[in-house]
Amino acid sequence: MTRTRVHNMMVSLDGYAAGTTVTLEEPIGAARALFGQFDGRVIHGVQHADAPITLDRALTSLWGQGVGAEIMGRRKFGPQTGPWPEDGWRGWWGEEPPFRTPVYVLTHHPRPPMEFANGTSFRFVDASPAEALALAQEAAGRLDVRIGGGPTTVRQFLAADLIDMMHLIIVPIVLGEGTSLWEGLGNVQDRFEVETIASPSGLTHQLWNRLPA
Amino acid sequence: MTRTRVHNMMVSLDGYAAGTTVTLEEPIGAARALFGQFDGRVIHGVQHADAPITLDRALTSLWGQGVGAEIMGRRKFGPQTGPWPEDGWRGWWGEEPPFRTPVYVLTHHPRPPMEFANGTSFRFVDASPAEALALAQEAAGRLDVRIGGGPTTVRQFLAADLIDMMHLIIVPIVLGEGTSLWEGLGNVQDRFEVETIASPSGLTHQLWNRLPA
Repeated sequence: MTRTRVHNMMVSLDGYAAGTTVTLEEPIGAARALFGQFDGRVIHGVQHADAPITLDRALTSLWGQGVGAEIMGRRKFGPQTGPWPEDGWRGWWGEEPPFRTPVYVLTHHPRPPMEFANGTSFRFVDASPAEALALAQEAAGRLDVRIGGGPTTVRQFLAADLIDMMHLIIVPIVLGEGTSLWEGLGNVQDRFEVETIASPSGLTHQLWNRLPA
Repeated sequence: MTRTRVHNMMVSLDGYAAGTTVTLEEPIGAARALFGQFDGRVIHGVQHADAPITLDRALTSLWGQGVGAEIMGRRKFGPQTGPWPEDGWRGWWGEEPPFRTPVYVLTHHPRPPMEFANGTSFRFVDASPAEALALAQEAAGRLDVRIGGGPTTVRQFLAADLIDMMHLIIVPIVLGEGTSLWEGLGNVQDRFEVETIASPSGLTHQLWNRLPA
């Protein structure tokens, strides 16, 4: 059995997981406050943080476990909109993107793929969630597929009932505005078993596992 | 920085982590009740369980992350005592031991090493905790060393102040007798920062991280 998984999805108390706009200077928009306690050094394993192995770091480290491909929205790849400019943009991450697998970028403007020495590739597809998932599953083989965000992309996959497991991190802040994870998803929790874990840090972790059909 | 880590150490409410004796029929002695809720399928990653990714499974999956060698007591390797009989014993795990790294077995009766196709090797050493750790660290290179138990071995490494991180799972049962994890370790908690996490399953997880010297 392979899964479609979401990890480290940080959400404010009012349900926002990103700002409303993304610019080169503000990659996650006004939602940067969500990431104050996030230690991304451990996404490839807890041994990568020169810091205590806390619950927050332990759960963050699930991100890469057994994942063979990612699907992301265009805004996670870059701030551009419309047809791609000839600007040499290769993503926010320089020549060492953390993914180390094929990554499918959802866009209405397909373009040739990009390859990186560490195993990451970006493939640009104009596809529905189900079509993109089929491509990513083929690339992942016997491994799982991660839906990498942003919130609009996760919301679309939730609406299409394509998410098997989701790790949310509820951050005790109120953003007031932004991109909602939940818009149009009333009662989505009925399709899941939800485990809630309070962290000593003040964060709340939730593990959503889809109920058997 | 590399660490010396303990994972998935299951302890009863009265502090026992194994039975008093180990036999071929009872590998963990009378302490088998400790393991009722333990899903060992996920030790190499949460993707390996055809079951919900719960807090318990998520934390169990830290076991193999970034670990390059293990040290274990002789009783974890087999039920024999004294000089090794010529019985063809190659450990409890058949030809697929889960370790996939060098494993140093502490014994007063050294013998030639055993190699397995999946990367596991057992090397039998008559050494102090510090000496065994030096050997394991050299084998692990830039990765961490796991102290694999049983409780007597973990207790010796705690007494020698050689543990950097320890994941305990407190199981809500009273064993009444067994091998104590804590004997002779009064106030050991003063050397650690301890995070306690209640699991919806009824288990309690603790993450012990050694305080800076």
